[in-house]
Order: sequence, then C-alpha cells, then structure tokens
Amino acid sequence: MSYDPQNIFAKILRGEVPSVKVFEDESVIAIMDVFPQANGHVLVIPKAASRNLFDIAPHELSALILRVQIIAKAAKQAFQADGITLSQFNESAGGQSVFHTHFHVMPRFNGIALGAHGGSGIADLEVLKTQAEQIKAALSANPPAA
Amino acid sequence: MSYDPQNIFAKILRGEVPSVKVFEDESVIAIMDVFPQANGHVLVIPKAASRNLFDIAPHELSALILRVQIIAKAAKQAFQADGITLSQFNESAGGQSVFHTHFHVMPRFNGIALGAHGGSGIADLEVLKTQAEQIKAALSANPPAA
Repeated sequence: MSYDPQNIFAKILRGEVPSVKVFEDESVIAIMDVFPQANGHVLVIPKAASRNLFDIAPHELSALILRVQIIAKAAKQAFQADGITLSQFNESAGGQSVFHTHFHVMPRFNGIALGAHGGSGIADLEVLKTQAEQIKAALSANPPAA
Repeated sequence: MSYDPQNIFAKILRGEVPSVKVFEDESVIAIMDVFPQANGHVLVIPKAASRNLFDIAPHELSALILRVQIIAKAAKQAFQADGITLSQFNESAGGQSVFHTHFHVMPRFNGIALGAHGGSGIADLEVLKTQAEQIKAALSANPPAA
C-alpha cells in the first residue's frame, strides 16, 4: 500500500487545510479531532509521511508514542479525566479512514461510553478551540522533560 | 495510582501463571489474549513494572511500541489479515482491566467487527497455541532488524 500525499492530514501538515492545533514540535502535530468520540479527543500525527504502522520508520514511531504520552497526560489533567483510551488503526479493515499514521488520544470519564466515530457529527469549532487551550495550559503547567 | 505486583501480568512475567507466548526479548513478552476480541489477538507487555501510560518510563514506552510494530506486522502476515487495530487502555474509565501497561494487537478482517472483551468467553488453548506458532513462524521468516 502506498502513501497518498493528498490525504487530509498531509494537507493539514502543509497548512492547506485548517485545524485546531494543541501541540507541535519537530516531529509531530497534535490537533483536535473534528469528529470526536469523547470530549477532548486529540489526534497525534507524525510530520514525516507514512501510511500506518506497517511502513512508519521505527525512529518516527518511537518519537510519536512519546508525544502521545505527553498529550495523554496533559489531556487527562486538562479535563480531569478518569482515564485515557488510545487507539491506532491500520488499513480500512483495521478502522483507518485517513491514510497517514496517527494515534487517537481519548479522555474517558466513569460511566460514559465512547461514541461512534462521526456519530455526533462535526464538533463545534469554538468548543474544540476551548479544549485545545485547556490542553495547552496543562502542557505549559507541566512542560515535558526534553 | 500505584502498581500492584499481584496483577495477572506480573504473575505471568514471573512464571507463576501460564501463558501462550508469542515473543520474548529483554524488554517485553507478547502473549495470546485468552479473551480475544479478534482471531489472533495478542498482548504486548513490558517486563518492567508500570501501571499504564501515566507512569511508564519513556524509554520503556519507546521499546514497547517498537515491539508492538514487529508483532503487528508478523500477525498481519501470519493470518493474512486485512488490517490491524491497536488499543491501549488507561485506568478503569479508559477500559483497563489489568493494571500493568500493555498494548492490544488485533488482526482485522474485512467485514468482521471486533468482539467485546470476554464476549466470546475464554479461548480454546489449542487454538491459541496454533495461532502463536503461526505468528512465531512469521517472525522467523522476517526477523526484525535489531
């Protein structure tokens, strides 16, 4: 399977499509999912092109999961979440709908099930912006060790 | 939240409880999930003690995800799967039921939904052993680069 540089995350990475950004460094961006399955649902996306787990370079994957951990801790704190669910989908059968590697970071709350992807429709942009600011504030309060 | 050394994965790591092992190296073991949500469902478990994503050391997490990638590629090949779904649960609200960090690697097939955890009851041990041998054969055929 090949990499299509016209996928939506590639366009976001190139700045051709807007996104609500939570975090950015040399190797990843983290953005709010516009079809959230949970309040505060974030996507962590490596800047380097790869389709999924089957072709991502190990050093890119390693950098990616460390950023996922940083974002997960910040999101848990920002929303006073009871837990976090991570998921990562590979190929259509595996649940993947955008063919650029990414992790889902979903804050979880006791008694609240995950929604279906797209089940609640597109999120309110102002809500996503507020949530992004909450995560950024948590990241600033507890900056990750380099 | 603290780490309880009496959790079932700690017992498996100490050899006090049997498991159907797929892979082992200096940093992880990979075993067949006895409550599979998909055919060939594997758990990748770091040897070092940690509760979940909130306390695992970054270098352990990095080592873990690289083994997850190796196992995912081998499982896809072993079962001729159409895709792979990864999940990783943190705290009860996040779906965690064993409080030792682990990733789920679930082979996926077109048109077949994931089962509920424990939804099909405990798996047949002989089936799990056969699946483990299939994954080991795929690992031997394509040994991971060190």
